[in-house]
Amino acid sequence: MTRTENVVEQILIDVGMVFDETLGIWNHTQTKIPVTVWWNEEKEQLVLLDQTKLPFETTIWTTTDWRKAAWEGIKGMVVRGSQAIGAAAGYAVLLAAKAILHSKQIDEFNEFLNACNEIRSTRPTASPLMWAVDRAVEAATEARRVGKSAEDIIEIIKKAADYFLAADLILCQYLIKEGLQYIEEQDVIMTHCNGGSLSSSYGGHALGMIEEAHAQGREILVVAKETRPRGQGFKLTTWELNRAGVPVVVVTDNMIGAAFKRYKVKKIILGVDRLARDGSVANKIGSADLARIAAHFDDISFYYATSYSTIDLNAVGKEIPIEERDQEEILYPYRLEAKDKKERGILSRDAHDQWPPAHLIATSEVPETKKIGLFNPAFDITPSGLIDLLLLDIGSYAPHQIKTLTDAKIAELVAERLRTWGIQPELI
Amino acid sequence: MTRTENVVEQILIDVGMVFDETLGIWNHTQTKIPVTVWWNEEKEQLVLLDQTKLPFETTIWTTTDWRKAAWEGIKGMVVRGSQAIGAAAGYAVLLAAKAILHSKQIDEFNEFLNACNEIRSTRPTASPLMWAVDRAVEAATEARRVGKSAEDIIEIIKKAADYFLAADLILCQYLIKEGLQYIEEQDVIMTHCNGGSLSSSYGGHALGMIEEAHAQGREILVVAKETRPRGQGFKLTTWELNRAGVPVVVVTDNMIGAAFKRYKVKKIILGVDRLARDGSVANKIGSADLARIAAHFDDISFYYATSYSTIDLNAVGKEIPIEERDQEEILYPYRLEAKDKKERGILSRDAHDQWPPAHLIATSEVPETKKIGLFNPAFDITPSGLIDLLLLDIGSYAPHQIKTLTDAKIAELVAERLRTWGIQPELI
Repeated sequence: MTRTENVVEQILIDVGMVFDETLGIWNHTQTKIPVTVWWNEEKEQLVLLDQTKLPFETTIWTTTDWRKAAWEGIKGMVVRGSQAIGAAAGYAVLLAAKAILHSKQIDEFNEFLNACNEIRSTRPTASPLMWAVDRAVEAATEARRVGKSAEDIIEIIKKAADYFLAADLILCQYLIKEGLQYIEEQDVIMTHCNGGSLSSSYGGHALGMIEEAHAQGREILVVAKETRPRGQGFKLTTWELNRAGVPVVVVTDNMIGAAFKRYKVKKIILGVDRLARDGSVANKIGSADLARIAAHFDDISFYYATSYSTIDLNAVGKEIPIEERDQEEILYPYRLEAKDKKERGILSRDAHDQWPPAHLIATSEVPETKKIGLFNPAFDITPSGLIDLLLLDIGSYAPHQIKTLTDAKIAELVAERLRTWGIQPELI
Repeated sequence: MTRTENVVEQILIDVGMVFDETLGIWNHTQTKIPVTVWWNEEKEQLVLLDQTKLPFETTIWTTTDWRKAAWEGIKGMVVRGSQAIGAAAGYAVLLAAKAILHSKQIDEFNEFLNACNEIRSTRPTASPLMWAVDRAVEAATEARRVGKSAEDIIEIIKKAADYFLAADLILCQYLIKEGLQYIEEQDVIMTHCNGGSLSSSYGGHALGMIEEAHAQGREILVVAKETRPRGQGFKLTTWELNRAGVPVVVVTDNMIGAAFKRYKVKKIILGVDRLARDGSVANKIGSADLARIAAHFDDISFYYATSYSTIDLNAVGKEIPIEERDQEEILYPYRLEAKDKKERGILSRDAHDQWPPAHLIATSEVPETKKIGLFNPAFDITPSGLIDLLLLDIGSYAPHQIKTLTDAKIAELVAERLRTWGIQPELI
């Protein structure tokens, strides 16, 4: 195997990837799943796997413009998953530095800091995004303080961005290794949303371990839940599992018990948005309900699989506020249905273009007489008592063990793993 | 109140309806919900509320052609709900008799019997459909045996058809009365699919009682589940509750626990496809999962509300085979999404027109490597232990009490109720 100077490239090769000329991004030789974030050194370009076009079209999205990276790439969800967003943000900061920093002028540096703030603001709940931007800004500020040139500062930011991506690639490999201990021959595994390779740089969270188990020859069947309103289970999970060759059945979100019985589901593995101190988990809406249904079935184990970065030792599950998302997500397919039925002459031209029509939608949180409300919570909280085990890139934990962790302990476990792969966590 | 010769018309008036000239069908003065099936005496026409156009357009569907009534009206689901289908089938048989029977020729009568068989075959699982056709055929056959004229036979079929509709209208009123005992001021009630007035002639099953409670001035909030893949909860339940003025919140099928907490849900009331001897219930897919989730919440009561006609004393829940429906139902919104995104230039012309594309869809029941399966079960079975009470038009029963009923006992309870309204169950 050839060695290369580029730290990210070396890890991509070690993980089992080759550069795919047709696709324009690195692709795994066995699973055929590409890396989701990459920096094209030659073109000085941020390259993302375009997840807004999946599953209908498999293509990359590129930019050399930091604003486009921030608003289209990150805010527009071309890239998903908090760690992958963090990595993309590092390169967005790099694009900003390259565009703005040419001299030692303070105005230029302030303009750069403003750009970083703009990048940082695109996805308010993704903590690795803020963490990555803050680390890059700190490194740049320190370099400027000690009198480094614009060129040197850019080089330091590049190292930081590469570090974010490299660290996620490596830690996903540790998560895969952890998960492989729990995935058996002939397993039938249900999942929800997309806690997959697509939600990481590569190989993350609930699905990476399944794809690797399949690549190693274990026969596995996955049952994927649609995940209304955005359909990530139907669209992204089936796309990525199918690409990896894993057989998958898709069901809508109200077919859980029926699918348990029909396919003899043995395990449930989901990704995580936030893992609280009390061992409860905030994750995509529907996760807690899935756990509640599974509790009625004695033979089904319930796992969460995630990166250390989702641990929030200050959070208590019950106190996490539930974000509500745009109603348009729920309305969208019915707007399309009305349009389709008008085009086909099933509905007259006078029919409503959407349901409910705007004048019937409630404006208050609890609708009044003659009004229709739309409730669109982004996630729910799974009580720790419904979770059998938490699979993490820093080891497996029973829910009650999370409170025994400290930030320092977590940092040490992460650092150990990065050092094993030749990455110095002290880099930034 | 004026009395009329027409038995159905008299009941419609007694129930609280007036003829709506604009809509072309009888409409309730308080709930504003129309009857779903009606026979226009003057035009000799079957009139249905067109449920295929709801909620986008509120309009009627009419025909004088028995084949159209069978294939478009019944098979095409312009009318829904087994009892309403039974009533529509009676009038389809009447249309067939009017079209075919002109003399005492045996060929004509055989042609009529063939037509009845065709009508009977349109919805294989709706038992009141078969029951209604069989009763009409029996009555016609007996009349022919004793030498009645074609005109007389048609008159007998008309009486039978009116009876089917009249009986459902009356029994839905009894179900409403039963349910009103359990619906309190300030109740927050979750429902699934559309076990509503729209699933009956008028005022049935889970929703009729809520609409009546609201009309009587009780403040109630309903939370309606979307009910993928066909969206009856999103489309029909919100339409009918909104028309009746009842405030309603719609959520997708994976937001049950979140909605319980957000709106402080106290009760769940659903309709029924089939009520088995052991007190378990076959109903729209997702009903059993809803019961399983509710079992984790101490303060939530779980009710089924239904017509006596769904009782199947020969059935045991676990043994009821689960019908699987067309995959197209699940694929439809994603096909529309691909089309929309192509039109808007988000996807290229080369992108897939649907997901999964046909060549990736599994043909076997359990998909093999590199294939994607689609599981679309029509209903599931709620174990009796998860049901608090069964609300029926013939009284309320704990699940374990169903096995104490007999067909004779049920028939007597029904007959009592019909006689109270001046309808002779011996009519046919």
